[in-house]
Amino acid sequence: MNEPFRIAIAGLGTVGRGVVKILQSQPELIRARAGRPVEITAVNARNKSADRGVDLSSYEWVGDPLALAGHDKVDCVLELIGGSDGVAKDLVEAALDNGKHVVTANKALLAHHGLELAQKAEDKGVSLNYEAAVAGGIPIIKSLREGLAANKVKGIYGILNGTCNYILTEMRETGRDFNDVLKDAQDRGYAEADPSFDVGGIDAAHKLALLTALGFGVKPNFDGLSIEGIESITADDIRFADELGYRIKLIGMARCLGGKVFQIMAPCLVPTASALGSVEGVFNAVFVEADPVDKTMAEGRGAGEGPTASAVVADVMDLARGITLPTFGVRASELKDAPWADLSDITAQHYIHLKVLDQPGVIADISAVLRDHQISIESLVQRGRDPQRAVSVVMVTHESGAKAVQDAVADIAKIPSMVDKPTVLRIEHI
Amino acid sequence: MNEPFRIAIAGLGTVGRGVVKILQSQPELIRARAGRPVEITAVNARNKSADRGVDLSSYEWVGDPLALAGHDKVDCVLELIGGSDGVAKDLVEAALDNGKHVVTANKALLAHHGLELAQKAEDKGVSLNYEAAVAGGIPIIKSLREGLAANKVKGIYGILNGTCNYILTEMRETGRDFNDVLKDAQDRGYAEADPSFDVGGIDAAHKLALLTALGFGVKPNFDGLSIEGIESITADDIRFADELGYRIKLIGMARCLGGKVFQIMAPCLVPTASALGSVEGVFNAVFVEADPVDKTMAEGRGAGEGPTASAVVADVMDLARGITLPTFGVRASELKDAPWADLSDITAQHYIHLKVLDQPGVIADISAVLRDHQISIESLVQRGRDPQRAVSVVMVTHESGAKAVQDAVADIAKIPSMVDKPTVLRIEHI
Repeated sequence: MNEPFRIAIAGLGTVGRGVVKILQSQPELIRARAGRPVEITAVNARNKSADRGVDLSSYEWVGDPLALAGHDKVDCVLELIGGSDGVAKDLVEAALDNGKHVVTANKALLAHHGLELAQKAEDKGVSLNYEAAVAGGIPIIKSLREGLAANKVKGIYGILNGTCNYILTEMRETGRDFNDVLKDAQDRGYAEADPSFDVGGIDAAHKLALLTALGFGVKPNFDGLSIEGIESITADDIRFADELGYRIKLIGMARCLGGKVFQIMAPCLVPTASALGSVEGVFNAVFVEADPVDKTMAEGRGAGEGPTASAVVADVMDLARGITLPTFGVRASELKDAPWADLSDITAQHYIHLKVLDQPGVIADISAVLRDHQISIESLVQRGRDPQRAVSVVMVTHESGAKAVQDAVADIAKIPSMVDKPTVLRIEHI
Repeated sequence: MNEPFRIAIAGLGTVGRGVVKILQSQPELIRARAGRPVEITAVNARNKSADRGVDLSSYEWVGDPLALAGHDKVDCVLELIGGSDGVAKDLVEAALDNGKHVVTANKALLAHHGLELAQKAEDKGVSLNYEAAVAGGIPIIKSLREGLAANKVKGIYGILNGTCNYILTEMRETGRDFNDVLKDAQDRGYAEADPSFDVGGIDAAHKLALLTALGFGVKPNFDGLSIEGIESITADDIRFADELGYRIKLIGMARCLGGKVFQIMAPCLVPTASALGSVEGVFNAVFVEADPVDKTMAEGRGAGEGPTASAVVADVMDLARGITLPTFGVRASELKDAPWADLSDITAQHYIHLKVLDQPGVIADISAVLRDHQISIESLVQRGRDPQRAVSVVMVTHESGAKAVQDAVADIAKIPSMVDKPTVLRIEHI
């Protein structure tokens, strides 16, 4: 095993450049730990002449990424192009077809096509590794697939998008509104020019679909995932939550409910002093509850050049050491078609924020709707007094069916004195 | 790879029993993830007739643990007997000599004899796995050896002993003294009848020596590790720390200082709101700072049947899948003899708690000693007034050489108005 393990890199953006830097800066450490040298043989990107701040002169430049898939001096292709379809998918398929290992950071690709790609890798006896696709700074794929392999997973809860967590943290610390902080995050490079994938919860949901598949041994099911973003969280919500002892976080949750699996991505209230409540800024965290290990949690940077490249190179080193494992922990043919649970299967306490005209009888109207849906209230506070103008009413329910709460709030929204759309958030006591 | 992977268990205490329970309760999950069935073929313990609450009737009972090492129906021996020498060591050596994989939870054995055992495993082409030896509920051995393999580790900081963390948490929450809480912990089964290994920091130091070897690629060096326990921490110290915004935790720290490696186990002050400051009760946590992943942290139960057995079975499953890696991440012959740093190489802020007779001039005497050692003070507070009787003086230094602080406090202890031994704790801003 002393011959070099040869890799090709397709895509030389932030992550690709980070991978090159690691391999160039600490080759001896990589060799000692991987048991043999890891060598870049060929690279590809759209623009050959861009200055990437790394010396690529000793690698073969390949104009067409698909040419890497059949390259005879390549053991493993790194797909760092991105996107759920198109050239990224073509490259991964072609590389696997040619019996080459693939390492990718592409959560969208795997969330949408993970099952067929896992099957292809297995058929060819190679690996499809994707540690970097979920929370780069936390080796959570390895932990779930190997470290916690002896456990029956009961729940996975994660803060999986650093942009959202940064925005929510900033909103809380500064009292500013969502759009204001988003703009600022874009200026600092923490959010994309088109932020919808991040703030809409889609990026995080891609990651959750992979963790669910791995943790519960089920086929990845992105389409069945309920997704809500953080766009409608207001500075008021964050302040009210804080006063109640909670922080608002975009939480991905996958739980085993009887024989069913439930997965949802939505902003939630979590206790300020809890493990997830104290994860701030661009950090990610994943909390796993399993039998018999009980509760275990990991926290680290979710994105950025260093953490993501660290995860990509770790995947490469596993392959260099000869470790090849099924993509989702068990053979693709053994992944189950889970019966999926929906909102009517779960109960939780809920935070409800209504904007109402401050006039007599409105609380009675709201209370009547809740009673009709059999939802009982732990607390109800009207924030301020301002006759005939809009004021906030903040309620916390007792443990209630999530579907019943949703239905009740839909009815409450029809009350004439209601102003704005109500905000409903689950409270998760993780 | 469909033939069963056959294991023998030596030692049927809490952990051994937990392993049997996992393999009996979820054999199908284990098979699917390991790629083949895992079967217990033989077991051994001191007392055959003890009721362990699990059915052992289908396994061969072997009276002499050493007989497992040469058993022809065993691929892997689980050494769950314990102790740094004696039968545990004999068994591990014999099993490796016979070309059998070994999985152990024995931190003392590896801290003292890890290098020679790693070499032996390598010579025989087998693995010596020990995930359960350090923080069972956290797959930290795997994370350091594989998940973070692309990183140059700069620092490892851990809360590695659940008994100590439980005692310190209880002391803070109840205001009670060390001995009182220890007694209580013993009654509840959280502390051994002879607690010295735990509260003296030795158990945690065994674990730190293994993390240091793995993280920095150095030979395990337990004998060179500076160890202080929590026995002399008082309720006053915990209260003063709390008022200053810190919690007292038994922290294992390994850091790279220039080309040297520094490792120490001692109670420290960490910020209350920090990642390690919020780890409470019987939980363990490990914080790693590395390049390029930056900061990453994991938390979970450190001990107990479930978490420890989970780690043992994960190690077994890795072997069943055909994963064999060097014990300390690189070949034993490549482990470095690190130049070890000592106290004179590190600087930190320090907390100093003195008991002095409340009389004029004593603060001047103390200040003069500190000046002579070039230690500057951030704050100095005399707690209470009680002329001619003992009162507490609590000081926080600016960043100062740890050796200089130690020397200064030795001189301060000689001042005539000093009552009791001074308490000196590092403040770690992790």
